[in-house]
Amino acid sequence: MDIRIKKLVDYMELQSIDVLLITQPKNVYYFTGFLTDPHERFMGLVLVKGKDPFLFLPLLDAENAETISSVKKIYSHDDAENAYEVLQRYLPSNISTLGLEKNHLTVKSYEAVVDIANASEIHEIDELIQEMRLSKSQEEISKIKKAIEITEEALRLTLPKIKLNITEMEVVAELEYQIKKLGAQGPSFSSIVLAGEKAGHPHGHPGNRKIKTGEFLLIDFGVILDGYVSDLTRTFAIGQINDQLKDIYDAVLQANLQAITSVKPDKPIANVDISAREVIKSRGYGQYFINRVGHGFGMEIHEHPSVHSKAEGLLREGMTFTIEPGIYNPKLAGVRIEDNVVVTKDGVNVLSSFPKELQSLEV
Amino acid sequence: MDIRIKKLVDYMELQSIDVLLITQPKNVYYFTGFLTDPHERFMGLVLVKGKDPFLFLPLLDAENAETISSVKKIYSHDDAENAYEVLQRYLPSNISTLGLEKNHLTVKSYEAVVDIANASEIHEIDELIQEMRLSKSQEEISKIKKAIEITEEALRLTLPKIKLNITEMEVVAELEYQIKKLGAQGPSFSSIVLAGEKAGHPHGHPGNRKIKTGEFLLIDFGVILDGYVSDLTRTFAIGQINDQLKDIYDAVLQANLQAITSVKPDKPIANVDISAREVIKSRGYGQYFINRVGHGFGMEIHEHPSVHSKAEGLLREGMTFTIEPGIYNPKLAGVRIEDNVVVTKDGVNVLSSFPKELQSLEV
Repeated sequence: MDIRIKKLVDYMELQSIDVLLITQPKNVYYFTGFLTDPHERFMGLVLVKGKDPFLFLPLLDAENAETISSVKKIYSHDDAENAYEVLQRYLPSNISTLGLEKNHLTVKSYEAVVDIANASEIHEIDELIQEMRLSKSQEEISKIKKAIEITEEALRLTLPKIKLNITEMEVVAELEYQIKKLGAQGPSFSSIVLAGEKAGHPHGHPGNRKIKTGEFLLIDFGVILDGYVSDLTRTFAIGQINDQLKDIYDAVLQANLQAITSVKPDKPIANVDISAREVIKSRGYGQYFINRVGHGFGMEIHEHPSVHSKAEGLLREGMTFTIEPGIYNPKLAGVRIEDNVVVTKDGVNVLSSFPKELQSLEV
Repeated sequence: MDIRIKKLVDYMELQSIDVLLITQPKNVYYFTGFLTDPHERFMGLVLVKGKDPFLFLPLLDAENAETISSVKKIYSHDDAENAYEVLQRYLPSNISTLGLEKNHLTVKSYEAVVDIANASEIHEIDELIQEMRLSKSQEEISKIKKAIEITEEALRLTLPKIKLNITEMEVVAELEYQIKKLGAQGPSFSSIVLAGEKAGHPHGHPGNRKIKTGEFLLIDFGVILDGYVSDLTRTFAIGQINDQLKDIYDAVLQANLQAITSVKPDKPIANVDISAREVIKSRGYGQYFINRVGHGFGMEIHEHPSVHSKAEGLLREGMTFTIEPGIYNPKLAGVRIEDNVVVTKDGVNVLSSFPKELQSLEV
């Protein structure tokens, strides 16, 4: 039996769980190697005490899953059936405790599952899986590294194409073209390319804004490769920029470096945020650093841990997260410098290697 | 007051709802014009009886929303705060009935909301909003048309680049490059380009499979433009194909045409699926048409109605959905021909216009 599924089975035993239902697509991938986006269709990995685990899938995914999934027992439902009623056929009639993911199931789906399972008790299994996924294995880190390599190569190939009057969206088109040519399955989130004052919005949308000299161009993007993601930000000067902008860039760079230095196993997660925040505050930009310094990533672009100033818990070997301090002045400019790191046995390994010193693009 | 929000207010009055919480990002966009992907962060449009509606947002979205949203009152929470506890400050202390979206809220989020709202009754508002979004306005249909135009133009521009030995993923890269150059914000779902027997999987993933003569190339993709989507599939012959494949193509084409003819207001939704299914069955391929004939779309790639053989309800003017019969033989080939249609006052308007006759690409 797969070692990860074995952990679930042991947990079921320990907590007297009769049936365990895993429906979050990335979690299903984690336990079976089969990844799908079922949209609104219902699917899951089902463990019934004392029986072989099975996948419950929309019919149109079944054929693919048979080839790819490590769990070979598959039941399916077609589009004209009520998925929950079909699932009920494969569940025992007397379920005492049912385990499921409260962080993923919608209330509607939850009510349907509880209705057909007729269980007397519901056991939340989100934390168990979150805990399992928190420390990445060497194999997982290798996959992340490959995703980062493609990201950095795509950025290198795109920079020479950035010329005066190119729009933000055209830069997005180039970046995403390159990542696919380099073998990635796609972007890991909606790529962000923002010029000038638009970069002052941490969640701005790229559009038809043209690139001008004397301002910043912020590029934040990542890729999905074999189910794992990257998430990189670099901010470039377009031609020459003034001293005020240079000072903002330097403040962010120092915060990035300081935060990286603070990463050590068994130290508080919150320290990483606080150490970056102190640098930016001491440089007089505290009010413009309006979000957390980073977030975990791996199979998803946002995973645990959330790296903010009040985060609870300690850093642990194998945790992968972003370090991305920024200064966002919506009237003037925005700078973010984002790396991907993994906590090692005695410190930190910075997985991203794209240069961070201020680079002026000749346009 | 915005006419859509007015409907919510009237409904609250009618159903004695004290507080209404809308958290699905596309629904928030529908009512405010402000679209964001909050990832795991909590956000929503909040209506409190007798007060002005407000947006409750992550701090990093607040600045953008102020410019874009029609709802101008905005409260925010930062990453280090518990969003639910912050929200509680803006809610009345005595809520009798709370309205929310059971189809969107996760169980975890629902429990947190119910906990801070301390409401004695929960009222599900999914159907109300679903009902409002079901019939598209002229303005919405115009946006959808523009999305389709870009999709078809991108396909036209990509076809000449399809040469022998190009991989599926390289075709994806070309298509998605073109849609962004043409002004779309991005693909509306993970683009599907599948060659030969791979197209026999309706949900297959594009990869390094190279394109060969004598087989089909299936291209299924769409774009997002101004918050609205398109979803188009065409299947091409690579060079010359044999009579068996030609017969499969023709069966799908006839099913597509038959299904379109069946679309009329006040006729059963299920008929659209059944009419396509009858054609494919009569041609001897019934077992290979393993999914529904179509799905609603608009702001989301999958919306109501779901067009399957047991769908309940009648077609209604303004409904937009796909018509996409297919034959999927995983050992041999796959063909899908997908159009986007809108139900009109007395029939149907096919919004997509890319030619459907079998086209052989010279490679």
